Amino acid sequence: MDSDTDARIQSIGGGSLLIAWQLKDKNVLIVGGGEVASQRIESILTADAHITVVSPEHGLNARTRRFIELRKDRVVHHDREFSGPEELDGMDMVLTALDDNDLSRQIVETSRSRRIPVNAADIPDLCDFYFGAQVRDGPLQIMISTNGNGPRIASLIKTKIQHALSGQEGEAIIKVGKLRSKLKERARGVGGPLGRARMKWMSGLCNTWELEDFAVMDESAMDKILDEGWEKNARVPTVEEIGISRPRRKEIIPTATILPTSIGFLAGALVAAFVIHCTRKL
Amino acid sequence: MDSDTDARIQSIGGGSLLIAWQLKDKNVLIVGGGEVASQRIESILTADAHITVVSPEHGLNARTRRFIELRKDRVVHHDREFSGPEELDGMDMVLTALDDNDLSRQIVETSRSRRIPVNAADIPDLCDFYFGAQVRDGPLQIMISTNGNGPRIASLIKTKIQHALSGQEGEAIIKVGKLRSKLKERARGVGGPLGRARMKWMSGLCNTWELEDFAVMDESAMDKILDEGWEKNARVPTVEEIGISRPRRKEIIPTATILPTSIGFLAGALVAAFVIHCTRKL
Repeated sequence: MDSDTDARIQSIGGGSLLIAWQLKDKNVLIVGGGEVASQRIESILTADAHITVVSPEHGLNARTRRFIELRKDRVVHHDREFSGPEELDGMDMVLTALDDNDLSRQIVETSRSRRIPVNAADIPDLCDFYFGAQVRDGPLQIMISTNGNGPRIASLIKTKIQHALSGQEGEAIIKVGKLRSKLKERARGVGGPLGRARMKWMSGLCNTWELEDFAVMDESAMDKILDEGWEKNARVPTVEEIGISRPRRKEIIPTATILPTSIGFLAGALVAAFVIHCTRKL
Repeated sequence: MDSDTDARIQSIGGGSLLIAWQLKDKNVLIVGGGEVASQRIESILTADAHITVVSPEHGLNARTRRFIELRKDRVVHHDREFSGPEELDGMDMVLTALDDNDLSRQIVETSRSRRIPVNAADIPDLCDFYFGAQVRDGPLQIMISTNGNGPRIASLIKTKIQHALSGQEGEAIIKVGKLRSKLKERARGVGGPLGRARMKWMSGLCNTWELEDFAVMDESAMDKILDEGWEKNARVPTVEEIGISRPRRKEIIPTATILPTSIGFLAGALVAAFVIHCTRKL
């Protein structure tokens, strides 16, 4: 709590509130059917919502068509131009993906007056929220936002993040979730000292083990973790104790080692031969 | 558009909609003043909103107190328990951070009836949206969501991501934004073929240059990029042409090279000496 912290607190600002919006079985209206609309459909399908696409048939791109064909369970298409405010009845979110900015503005105004969250593609000042580049691995979702300062850069950063992940993060999250459920079966109750003890133990485990260790836990490993850890005074067992065999990264000797070793060998041999050759002559 | 894509499209779902919510100068009510409340205050301050904290003085933790003291420009504190639905008047978002689940539920119901987005800490099924682990670097914001499956794992993944970033991403985003503004000054107009040409050129540049190259651009480098690139038939100039001196990672010969080379040298020398020794004896 020094002055540095004060300065930091005083400077907080200038960003957005990044959140994971819940749309399960909610209704989302998408006005438009082109490239942006197809991106929106994918994002909204991810969140298990029901989607109404309003766009004349000729305004649909191939991908939007495909979503309409293949996801009849979630996507309804109305082959018409946006017809008026009644299109917004019962909607929980509205997204416009139109070239017609005036129409977009009208739709945004109506949505606002009804307090329906709204996003208008390419008109940031009209948006209640922005989209961003996304990474998905099962239960793991990552969003990269440049706060409207360039989607291309967001995509470069997305690539960096994808390279940094092992691809086992989603699996690890699922397994830790299962372990937590098993723990709750053994130590029932909501909140209170028990709740805090559970949380503390899970935290200790997550801070000690590596993410990839969790990804390879099976049912019996989970039981063993609980038997050897939670049941024994809530200690944190080691990976070795549990006998989890994490698929270590393949121990291939990299070229970066073979090459200098070979060069060194050759150099050593030549120098030795030369030295011996010289000493023989003496 | 093969059957693989079909299968992928059919399997999309099970997640949230990750978005960057805009709260500039909006009003956010936070009910509660403890640890969770202080986290919420930080998130909401990041988005430049006005915050009303409703909590009895004794319910405030040190960090919440600090925000109230240091950010009088944005944070108002009412030293009382939540008094009723009128507290929600004029609010654009409501967050509860209470131990009292019944009160939380009441506040959520009132918020819902007024269509105010609401989050109740620790009661996921009552939330319009979830929070997640966050990384911030100026205009860059990254959110890691495990969709309610464990904040600890989110924090492990956050650390991975922080290690993968160079720390120059925020600066790169700002500079690319400036370059884009300069481009728009030279090639004015919204949308149409010119808009598409601008977008295509910026994309080309972002796909060719590295993020760290953008971070070190100064005004004159930006002008040169426009002169040598955009003005010359919208070609993409190289980093070398522009004469940008990116701070390359220090070219230290790593131990991983020195060691195998030395071992190789020694082994080579010994083998050569041995061979010569043997041949001499013959």
